[in-house]
Amino acid sequence: MEKVKVAIWGFGAMGSGMAKMLLNKKGVEIVGVCDISEKRVGKDIYEFLGVERGDRKPVIINSNIEEVVNEKSCDIVLTATDSFTKGAFPKIKYCLEQKVNVISTAEEMSYPQAQNPELAAELDKIAKENGVTVLGTGINPGLIMDLLVVCLTGCMIDVEHIEAKRVNSLSPFGHTVMEEQGVGLTVEEFNKRVKDGTMAGHVGFAESVQMIADAIGWKIDKFEQQMKPIVTKVDRKSPHGFAAAGDVAGVNMTGQGYVNGEAKIDMVHPQQIEPEMEGTYTGDYINIKGTPEVNMAIKPEVEGGLGTIAMCVNMIPHVINASPGLKTMLDLPVPRAIMGDMRDFIER
Amino acid sequence: MEKVKVAIWGFGAMGSGMAKMLLNKKGVEIVGVCDISEKRVGKDIYEFLGVERGDRKPVIINSNIEEVVNEKSCDIVLTATDSFTKGAFPKIKYCLEQKVNVISTAEEMSYPQAQNPELAAELDKIAKENGVTVLGTGINPGLIMDLLVVCLTGCMIDVEHIEAKRVNSLSPFGHTVMEEQGVGLTVEEFNKRVKDGTMAGHVGFAESVQMIADAIGWKIDKFEQQMKPIVTKVDRKSPHGFAAAGDVAGVNMTGQGYVNGEAKIDMVHPQQIEPEMEGTYTGDYINIKGTPEVNMAIKPEVEGGLGTIAMCVNMIPHVINASPGLKTMLDLPVPRAIMGDMRDFIER
Repeated sequence: MEKVKVAIWGFGAMGSGMAKMLLNKKGVEIVGVCDISEKRVGKDIYEFLGVERGDRKPVIINSNIEEVVNEKSCDIVLTATDSFTKGAFPKIKYCLEQKVNVISTAEEMSYPQAQNPELAAELDKIAKENGVTVLGTGINPGLIMDLLVVCLTGCMIDVEHIEAKRVNSLSPFGHTVMEEQGVGLTVEEFNKRVKDGTMAGHVGFAESVQMIADAIGWKIDKFEQQMKPIVTKVDRKSPHGFAAAGDVAGVNMTGQGYVNGEAKIDMVHPQQIEPEMEGTYTGDYINIKGTPEVNMAIKPEVEGGLGTIAMCVNMIPHVINASPGLKTMLDLPVPRAIMGDMRDFIER
Repeated sequence: MEKVKVAIWGFGAMGSGMAKMLLNKKGVEIVGVCDISEKRVGKDIYEFLGVERGDRKPVIINSNIEEVVNEKSCDIVLTATDSFTKGAFPKIKYCLEQKVNVISTAEEMSYPQAQNPELAAELDKIAKENGVTVLGTGINPGLIMDLLVVCLTGCMIDVEHIEAKRVNSLSPFGHTVMEEQGVGLTVEEFNKRVKDGTMAGHVGFAESVQMIADAIGWKIDKFEQQMKPIVTKVDRKSPHGFAAAGDVAGVNMTGQGYVNGEAKIDMVHPQQIEPEMEGTYTGDYINIKGTPEVNMAIKPEVEGGLGTIAMCVNMIPHVINASPGLKTMLDLPVPRAIMGDMRDFIER
């Protein structure tokens, strides 16, 4: 059996991280990479990543997707270009029409039914027409604040209330994330950006809440979310960020899914640089009231960057094996690490 | 659409608990119950369970399975009669040949490939011939020390070592469990029973280890397990058990799965009455070394009885929706609570 052929669209921190991971796995090869950044185009990925090429063919980063992905040129494309379904849609559509499967890191694509039901239906239709599958996933949305919650409800007779809380550190992240999360802004600047709608914060609460609700059979009648600055009392410095005392060290996002007028799903997600400096210890927490109660903690939190890279790569076999259409993490078997030859995970 | 029709075979703590759970769910009905215990046969389940019957038809507990389950008489049978594949096999075979789906609580049936590959292959064949599906599940094996482990590896780039530890209390359980786990025995009696092979302990390590290994692509070349008495220093009393100081309060089971001669999967499962009396606090712990490391704790542990009942009932839609054959928790979508009408979870 031939190796699993993967192309990557978007070679930033996520796309290049997936490439590194793939190069260490058996039974899979990278056949193309598309990226539009001037500092990447034209470079060989092995050189770019500082990985020994050995007897593998060079893979030159190309800005023209039509030269990277065309009809059945690979088994799957990993797209790491967007956060929103609207932005990801034309790229995913192009790949599906080339009869290749797609995994997208776009947060909203983890459950596009939540905010873009028409685009979700269209992707499902296009995927089915072309006999391929599309999935959105990542660490969150994708696992920590949704699929893992769903999985834990599996051992419950009744569920009364769900709280998913992810307390993480932004310190490992680069400039883009600092900018997106408002690290270093004054409180005034932060609030202005929230008002303008230019503060990204965490993208995915609407998706996670709807995924959980649909999974267990709750009908959400209202969804709300809030974005508040985390104001630091001390100067905090991370490799790529700085927040002076009195300024913003990150964003605290909260969200609620209401069922029959009652907040049944609570999401809490404070993200900041150097949280330990003021006694905040990171972790992922799921507390589900019901019968029996389930109180789970992962300490420290699963690192977001590595987690997203791993989720996308590890889901490759499940997506290739799936029936055609738009899938979500609810439809597929549980994610799992790939420690053997990837071809052994593919059903013939 | 008609309600989902469920029959139950075995009406002890598990079977009757599933019945109670089902009677509180929408879109599902119990159409038959088989049990051979004299104290149950001939009784109406509503009376037996102390549940208001309302306008539902009586369901009389019948010792003759041929009167309870026959060709397509229900959508699924929940069998709660055995721990071992060998004992469960003829009962499951009978049900599959009636063209009904089966969920079994038998611990070994959670992954019968591990110790009974021929019987597993035969069940797969029979299920396929009859167009139905069979699954073994429960809290453990089924979720805590296997599926949840697998799920958490999904966010990992590399896995080096897995430890799954379940520290639970036997206090909620009845006489049968006290007897099976050696509660109240002297150390001498305990060791004699281990030597005789009449100490049950926890059944399922071989299955959990093989399930994890197959899921992530590790080849197990040796599996071992050990059974040690938990000797109490103080008198311990639970509703159905008693262990005097110096005697046995429970069983500590450990197990190892070796890959290339190295113990890569460690299972630790001490079960005892009143663990708090000597400073042991219960919980489920999963510690996975690799990239990134994942350290998960559920405190206290998910209660085994309720958890098994919930897992079996909650998997009903997934089993009905599945393609024919023998399935394991690795093959199906993640378990989830059923808070809405069960029919909404069934694919048409």
